[in-house]
Amino acid sequence: MTPPTDPVAGPATDPAAEPPSGVPGGAGMDEIRLARIALTWLAEPGNRAVSLLVARLGPVDALRHLLAGEASDPKLRAAVVSRTAADDPWEIAADAAERTERIGARLVTPEDEDWPPRLRDLSRLALASAARRVDQETAPPLCFWVRGAWPLAEALQRSVAVVGSRAATPYGLHVATEIGFGLAERGWTVVSGGAYGIDAAAHRGALNAGGLTVAVLACGVDRPYPVGHTALFDRIAEDGLLISEWLPGAEPLRPRFLIRNRVIAAATSGTVLVEAAARSGATQTLHRALALKRPAMVVPGPVTSAMSVGAHETLREYPEARLVTGLPHILEEVGRIGADLAPPARGPQRPHDALDDESALVLESVPRRGSLGPDALAARSGLALRTALRKLSMLEQLGLVVRRDNGYALPPARVRPRGQPPGPPSG
Amino acid sequence: MTPPTDPVAGPATDPAAEPPSGVPGGAGMDEIRLARIALTWLAEPGNRAVSLLVARLGPVDALRHLLAGEASDPKLRAAVVSRTAADDPWEIAADAAERTERIGARLVTPEDEDWPPRLRDLSRLALASAARRVDQETAPPLCFWVRGAWPLAEALQRSVAVVGSRAATPYGLHVATEIGFGLAERGWTVVSGGAYGIDAAAHRGALNAGGLTVAVLACGVDRPYPVGHTALFDRIAEDGLLISEWLPGAEPLRPRFLIRNRVIAAATSGTVLVEAAARSGATQTLHRALALKRPAMVVPGPVTSAMSVGAHETLREYPEARLVTGLPHILEEVGRIGADLAPPARGPQRPHDALDDESALVLESVPRRGSLGPDALAARSGLALRTALRKLSMLEQLGLVVRRDNGYALPPARVRPRGQPPGPPSG
Repeated sequence: MTPPTDPVAGPATDPAAEPPSGVPGGAGMDEIRLARIALTWLAEPGNRAVSLLVARLGPVDALRHLLAGEASDPKLRAAVVSRTAADDPWEIAADAAERTERIGARLVTPEDEDWPPRLRDLSRLALASAARRVDQETAPPLCFWVRGAWPLAEALQRSVAVVGSRAATPYGLHVATEIGFGLAERGWTVVSGGAYGIDAAAHRGALNAGGLTVAVLACGVDRPYPVGHTALFDRIAEDGLLISEWLPGAEPLRPRFLIRNRVIAAATSGTVLVEAAARSGATQTLHRALALKRPAMVVPGPVTSAMSVGAHETLREYPEARLVTGLPHILEEVGRIGADLAPPARGPQRPHDALDDESALVLESVPRRGSLGPDALAARSGLALRTALRKLSMLEQLGLVVRRDNGYALPPARVRPRGQPPGPPSG
Repeated sequence: MTPPTDPVAGPATDPAAEPPSGVPGGAGMDEIRLARIALTWLAEPGNRAVSLLVARLGPVDALRHLLAGEASDPKLRAAVVSRTAADDPWEIAADAAERTERIGARLVTPEDEDWPPRLRDLSRLALASAARRVDQETAPPLCFWVRGAWPLAEALQRSVAVVGSRAATPYGLHVATEIGFGLAERGWTVVSGGAYGIDAAAHRGALNAGGLTVAVLACGVDRPYPVGHTALFDRIAEDGLLISEWLPGAEPLRPRFLIRNRVIAAATSGTVLVEAAARSGATQTLHRALALKRPAMVVPGPVTSAMSVGAHETLREYPEARLVTGLPHILEEVGRIGADLAPPARGPQRPHDALDDESALVLESVPRRGSLGPDALAARSGLALRTALRKLSMLEQLGLVVRRDNGYALPPARVRPRGQPPGPPSG
């Protein structure tokens, strides 16, 4: 299809190329979205010059401007020339759109209601690095590919990033799992990078709590890296979200991990660094959080461990970085009024805080997933069957447990990220 | 002997008691010193009212004033009445003076050149706690009992306190030993409280490096506590110093440890907290250092360890407390210009920093205590005997090693706290 001139983007300036007509997937994918895909492909995500151009002209005219060879940034101009020598950006975009559909993913752009509002803060970061003449990809993403059913903005609204070393120690893995579990249990989405070590421990902790977790990838959502995490990624896509700024099929090139890190820091209410070697990628994510004035939290460790050197260095160098030893400290930071764009969190308000000890014991013994019979629940809570049954009946009346499969289970709402959100849309 | 009226202390105001004549030890112990002992006995060390009185009237008239029942502080007045019901303070002081001599200890008072100048800063601390109406024994000590040959002020001039939990973990013991060793190796005196756990590890680390260590006790220097450390205390008295504000024979009563802590913080260039449970005595020492504006350093640990809770709490609550992971960070803090009354340290200047690699290896392999033959030194340094001999000859010419017992040893100066100090006086 021939795209109409977008009235919002102003008059088209000498369009050098047009999107091909009748591209597959073009039906559900308007010109702006295709332009965002093409721009993402032309330069690495986070490119400041592209971002400024899009802010000025809109995605479609920004793309036309670039394709006409009018980029003022010489590096960007050279990249456009080299990338368009053999390929047509509009065709690449159309192919990517088709592939997106085929792999069961979806595209989310800043034009969508589902765009995470916090990401706009990256414009400030990009301006700051421009002012300091630092050549870094710190501009906001142009679009996201998303696998998973949850609305993106909602999933990220109350979220905490947990990042750290791939070569984590048992200590770090334990701490990251506990934090991931605890955050998810209290309705916070756990965001990380899907890597081995700390990332995986945080994701798994959240999944095991029946909570929501988001993996921000540095490659296509259809080829998540590392391959050893294929099963983990499938589980995350099923219960949470896999997201990426890169086109389907994009390779996990080394620099992309650092580019990706700004999204982890920007999309969340705060970032927790669990274990990191000196000057590692995870410390960079924390520095991004600091630059964005988000709560930047660091878990200390043994000074004898090389895997805590980056954590201790960060605590020494950045007085704004906050030492945290576990969930209470983290909740204190991200729950601070004004700490994020979400309504001020008043800390976890769990119904059973108001229960008597025995009822609370019974409620605690109901599994987060699946159900258990009264006998098992009595055994788990250490109460007599008769007492357990009385308490279960009371808990059922309060709506804190439901009967299922001849036993008791938690009501579905308990594992959702917020008070009364709608269930995830189907596909 | 009847003491003459001290012209410095001004006119005697209705002396209620006089020191007994002909007391043993009185020969070497003048009236001021006896008065300081008596005052220390009358009220616990660090008593603010006593300290102010001594500052105003001098020790002798302060004592007379108190014995005349003229203390304005009602608690102090009551203490004086109860203590003097059965005992005469002058006699107690004379007995203590005799016992001091008998146990081979000595008394050091602010009138002596050997008084550590940093302790005067406690007057500020006492004024601050008076202003905040906090009832704490924070005033400077009235005198010290000292066992060991080193001059007290000199031993403490370049010193670092290393404090922590009695119930230390293997991790904490390892870190404290390393820090104690490293500090001593670089000519810093290691000060601690002689307790089990971190204190002992720090003392032992210093002793093993052939360095100087000072144990500040909360009981008489002739009955150091805990008794399980008798051998350690003997070694400290031999190579370093055992010091106390309490009279010989004084018991290690619980509150005395907290009173003692202010001396550890005040006498040193800085305090390092290695491991501490929540709200422990060791964290109190660090708080004293903070109040005195001395470098207050904290070694983090695993967040899973109860023995690091106090360390992490302190780092979270006091932004002035500095996270340190080892010796380089500690030297950076205590070596800061203006951080202490000692001339600004320019960091360790070790002669072999200017040596070639092989010579440095040989020098490093010379034991800190005793001597080794050329064969052993060649083996330790991993060099051929011929090379080792050549380097040893060169090192001898540079004065960096000396021949002893058919081998080579470090010259005595190398294990001394500073560049060219005099050797310790004999007894």
